Amino acid sequence: MSIFSHRSWRVALLSVGLSALVGFSGETFAATKGTDGPLTPPDIVASAAAGEWVAIAPSDLLVMDLAPDTAGHARRVVIQLLPAPFAQGWIGNIRKLAAAHWWDGMSINRLQDNYVVQWGDPEGDDKAKAKPVPSGLLENSEGAYVTPRFALPAGIESAPSFGADAYAPETRIIGGWPMGLDKDHAWPLHCYGMVGVGRDNPPDTGSGAELYAVIGQAPRQLDRNIALVGRVIEGIEWLSSLPRGTGPIGFYATPGERVPILSIRNGTDVTGLPTYQALATTGPTFARYADARANRRDRFFVKPAGGVDACNVPVPIRRAP
Amino acid sequence: MSIFSHRSWRVALLSVGLSALVGFSGETFAATKGTDGPLTPPDIVASAAAGEWVAIAPSDLLVMDLAPDTAGHARRVVIQLLPAPFAQGWIGNIRKLAAAHWWDGMSINRLQDNYVVQWGDPEGDDKAKAKPVPSGLLENSEGAYVTPRFALPAGIESAPSFGADAYAPETRIIGGWPMGLDKDHAWPLHCYGMVGVGRDNPPDTGSGAELYAVIGQAPRQLDRNIALVGRVIEGIEWLSSLPRGTGPIGFYATPGERVPILSIRNGTDVTGLPTYQALATTGPTFARYADARANRRDRFFVKPAGGVDACNVPVPIRRAP
Repeated sequence: MSIFSHRSWRVALLSVGLSALVGFSGETFAATKGTDGPLTPPDIVASAAAGEWVAIAPSDLLVMDLAPDTAGHARRVVIQLLPAPFAQGWIGNIRKLAAAHWWDGMSINRLQDNYVVQWGDPEGDDKAKAKPVPSGLLENSEGAYVTPRFALPAGIESAPSFGADAYAPETRIIGGWPMGLDKDHAWPLHCYGMVGVGRDNPPDTGSGAELYAVIGQAPRQLDRNIALVGRVIEGIEWLSSLPRGTGPIGFYATPGERVPILSIRNGTDVTGLPTYQALATTGPTFARYADARANRRDRFFVKPAGGVDACNVPVPIRRAP
Repeated sequence: MSIFSHRSWRVALLSVGLSALVGFSGETFAATKGTDGPLTPPDIVASAAAGEWVAIAPSDLLVMDLAPDTAGHARRVVIQLLPAPFAQGWIGNIRKLAAAHWWDGMSINRLQDNYVVQWGDPEGDDKAKAKPVPSGLLENSEGAYVTPRFALPAGIESAPSFGADAYAPETRIIGGWPMGLDKDHAWPLHCYGMVGVGRDNPPDTGSGAELYAVIGQAPRQLDRNIALVGRVIEGIEWLSSLPRGTGPIGFYATPGERVPILSIRNGTDVTGLPTYQALATTGPTFARYADARANRRDRFFVKPAGGVDACNVPVPIRRAP
């Protein structure tokens, strides 16, 4: 059956795979069509000038080392914290918890498929056994889930907007992060890899000691209901590939299934940490990349979408070459 | 720090977790607000009358048994195939491949984080080694990625529509499946767990022998560019938790990392298979569930979204009680 020759299926899947770096509502970029040829989004990112890559300060990183896996592989997860003015009350708490080595000896306690992985104190619901948190942590209220739009620094908005979606009147990259916007406020979006703060029903609970990361379809219903504080920029696979918990809502059913956390440290306290860089989201290459995520013109595609979800435009991040 | 008491964080996370069953643009359901109280989506599903659950025919199931994991656990993945009139050319091929036991001894060859897991013939790109497919498979063209809207049976559309999104003029549940629509066509959406057919660059390649499942943020740019043929209804965790491949685009770098497939069978050829049931998507309970996914009124939430993405309204499926 030559029509079903397998000779080139690996090539085909390569094309599919490259679309894992995706894009947005790019009609305004139609002028670039035909001038850049059928480049894939990674091709476009690879063409960025050195000056479009911006170093991420180590003080904005959080480094989680899990116990090695059964094959002895080290498992490091690197998290970038949200920049000011977003969620700084919780982020201050998280820096204090890391400086106090509070998470050392804690564990990953829950993984619910297509939803979140969560870590913190496995005895947290038992007052007699719960580990006390450091003094001086701030309580943050519901209002702090959103940031007043007038407080945003100038010049940090990518262009163009991705438009409205089911969850927000507008979505856009702001300061390098996927955000929802209304006329008064901005708030980060629960995209894949985003990290947030577990809390109790009252919205002012949640110190930052209990954290989760999104490992499935963006649970955007949580936007403006929980504090997001950062995103995983390296090592997400050490979280997303963990066994799914078989207890209620994905908690590990037995203590032995929990994954030990060796340490969580502020980036400034980790020796030998690589320099990470994010592609500037206000520059020309990001604009072309985002356009290509919305309008795949490379060879595999027969029907460019003409639009893209904000969570399908991951901001390119790399180790400095 | 009593304000950060951990006593009830587990309760809080329970509330978060239940939102893993999510909802849609439900303003038209405002009349139900206050009459059903702050039920969670799973509460609503649990209230469905027995007659709202519809059995899935074994002939619409595909059963994949992977080799047991290192702990000896059996790993079964159950896939529901799309009903007519969708993608039947490929689905006919898949039934023939399963009847011929074609996949026995094949393997899972690729897992790219936040994208897809893929299985088939690991030697498929080597003409000399590739396993021949059965004779009589159909070639399907680009036009078959979409279904003419006039061909849809009456009475299979859920109400209301989820509206437009970045990828489709309209999204809706049709015949129990998430679909995009324009005035002429309907097509299934690349939501989490959906199963599709790998192909080469020419759109008429792809027999159905190489399959993939979505295990991350919905890669909707693939809609109308590849044939979707079904969805995983049980055992997705055996796929989504596999190690990520370290080769290009997530291929396993060495043969030893591939996961052996013991068999893939048509449901009618599997003895002792449970009866699976889907919640009717044209009934009152699904409408209430979808509304709740868009407007979370249960205790944890402070800001109901007022809308929902079609891929965040998974159709409830269960084993028959």
